[in-house]
Amino acid sequence: MNFEEMLAARTQEAEDVLKKYLPKKEGFQEKVLEAMHYSIFAGGKRLRPVLMKESYVLFGGQSKIVEPFMAALEMIHNYSLVHDDLPDMDNDAYRRGRETTWRVYGAGMAVLAGDALLNYAFETAGRAFSMIGRVSGYTDGQGHAEDALHLYEAVGQALQILAQKAGVYGMVGGQCADLCAEGLPAEEVTDALLLYIHKNKTAALIEAAMMIGALLAGADAAFVSVMEKVAQNVGMAFQIQDDILDVTGSTEVLGKQTGSDEKNQKVTYVSLNGLEQARKDVRRMSEEAMEGLRALPVRSPFLEELIRNLITREK
Amino acid sequence: MNFEEMLAARTQEAEDVLKKYLPKKEGFQEKVLEAMHYSIFAGGKRLRPVLMKESYVLFGGQSKIVEPFMAALEMIHNYSLVHDDLPDMDNDAYRRGRETTWRVYGAGMAVLAGDALLNYAFETAGRAFSMIGRVSGYTDGQGHAEDALHLYEAVGQALQILAQKAGVYGMVGGQCADLCAEGLPAEEVTDALLLYIHKNKTAALIEAAMMIGALLAGADAAFVSVMEKVAQNVGMAFQIQDDILDVTGSTEVLGKQTGSDEKNQKVTYVSLNGLEQARKDVRRMSEEAMEGLRALPVRSPFLEELIRNLITREK
Repeated sequence: MNFEEMLAARTQEAEDVLKKYLPKKEGFQEKVLEAMHYSIFAGGKRLRPVLMKESYVLFGGQSKIVEPFMAALEMIHNYSLVHDDLPDMDNDAYRRGRETTWRVYGAGMAVLAGDALLNYAFETAGRAFSMIGRVSGYTDGQGHAEDALHLYEAVGQALQILAQKAGVYGMVGGQCADLCAEGLPAEEVTDALLLYIHKNKTAALIEAAMMIGALLAGADAAFVSVMEKVAQNVGMAFQIQDDILDVTGSTEVLGKQTGSDEKNQKVTYVSLNGLEQARKDVRRMSEEAMEGLRALPVRSPFLEELIRNLITREK
Repeated sequence: MNFEEMLAARTQEAEDVLKKYLPKKEGFQEKVLEAMHYSIFAGGKRLRPVLMKESYVLFGGQSKIVEPFMAALEMIHNYSLVHDDLPDMDNDAYRRGRETTWRVYGAGMAVLAGDALLNYAFETAGRAFSMIGRVSGYTDGQGHAEDALHLYEAVGQALQILAQKAGVYGMVGGQCADLCAEGLPAEEVTDALLLYIHKNKTAALIEAAMMIGALLAGADAAFVSVMEKVAQNVGMAFQIQDDILDVTGSTEVLGKQTGSDEKNQKVTYVSLNGLEQARKDVRRMSEEAMEGLRALPVRSPFLEELIRNLITREK
């Protein structure tokens, strides 16, 4: 299989995991369940669960205990999109060519659908606990309590990473700073503030993906830290590349309106540092990510190719 | 100490736990942290953490491992209030005599503050994992792996109960049904629908409080089920009593506008079943709750008095 075929297969796998874990549309709360499905199955790239699974396999993970976390992270990503699109937030009517959740179900129901996805993410991740007995063999009377204990520790840590990277010291923190930056005079939007926004709004969930994958596979704390740093560079480079494409890309190639940042008079990494410096920084972050990956005792050509594609993409 | 003094002491304890676990107001995301504090410290009764702690003590719990869960549950209760008050939801400008979060910080920031509280609830509850080594004595080299394992199992289950009772099969499910019921013709608002709303929107978090308290103290699954049933009766009776007081209470005693349900032409348990039947049902649920408590091998006069007060209150 070439890279495109491998990516398609892994994306389909993430899609199947999501389908398995999403709740059925029935009962008195059917409407909110419908809205959850509508927003989740809107054709996302499933980048985060794919990165998580690949990081898990990279460190020798072989069981299904990573699956509830793959589904949970994608639910968190989607809840943030549903709430970001709300009239009180970015007021977006379309996403990926379809009407946004609030346009179809109303803003009140979209608030609830986002809340439901976030809650259900933790409910889903929590199911990993019920898998520990089987995975560790402890309940069969063959395993040792220590084996089960190590898995409990890993799942507990994974849950904490998930909540932290999604929350006020992660994605929500970045969303808050972004919302506040819109109201600031241009000279107060500093480099430090923009880097904080990119690191938290974009990179934090990528960090969660790669850290949790490694952690659940039993990787040492030092390697989990390496994965965090790699993911941070990937996430930041990805976002700065986005700002670059908004200036240089043609509407035709990107499939979306470009020049939107300039039109909205939004201060971006590019308007602040210039196109040349921004490109230099993307290259540097990209190289740092690759160096981090290559320094690991294990290798994944697919993961390296995926990350290269993400950062150097022209659309 | 009499009951009022005991209640005041326990409420203060819950308040102190919350203060300990809420994040500092600093950094680029300061605004959302401020909004979280504003909504949490708006003078709530702290009923849910008080019930959780009392259920924990009832079953012999002695450590601080219940504290992160007490804080987490109150954060979840408060996130739901912040989102319920939004213009797109109930559009309430005041709560407990103060302006609501969205009126002070704007609707977009209030969406984020609710999201932040919900995320932080799980981040906080997750801290219980880091306490297991110390509480079980396992890290001191004195304890057995099995002791730590039992606590891991309990904390894992507690997290799942928290997410489930808060989510689409709990509180969010109830909020969804409530929102949809507003748009229904009166004849379609059935008894079953109203009971579903009360059970999920109100009782589910009370259930989480009493189940998690018992579970963390090491109570058997059968007793955790008893606590769930007791809490369900308490929560439903509490809510129906609320509907009764809206009809019978005077504005003076309640400190809030009464007759609001009738004015809004809202179908309630009282308008559907009549005042006499509603009162009879409150008495029955109240008795069932008390019977459940008295059948346990342990007793708490304070918990019984607290529940009696909640259900038979005149305001």
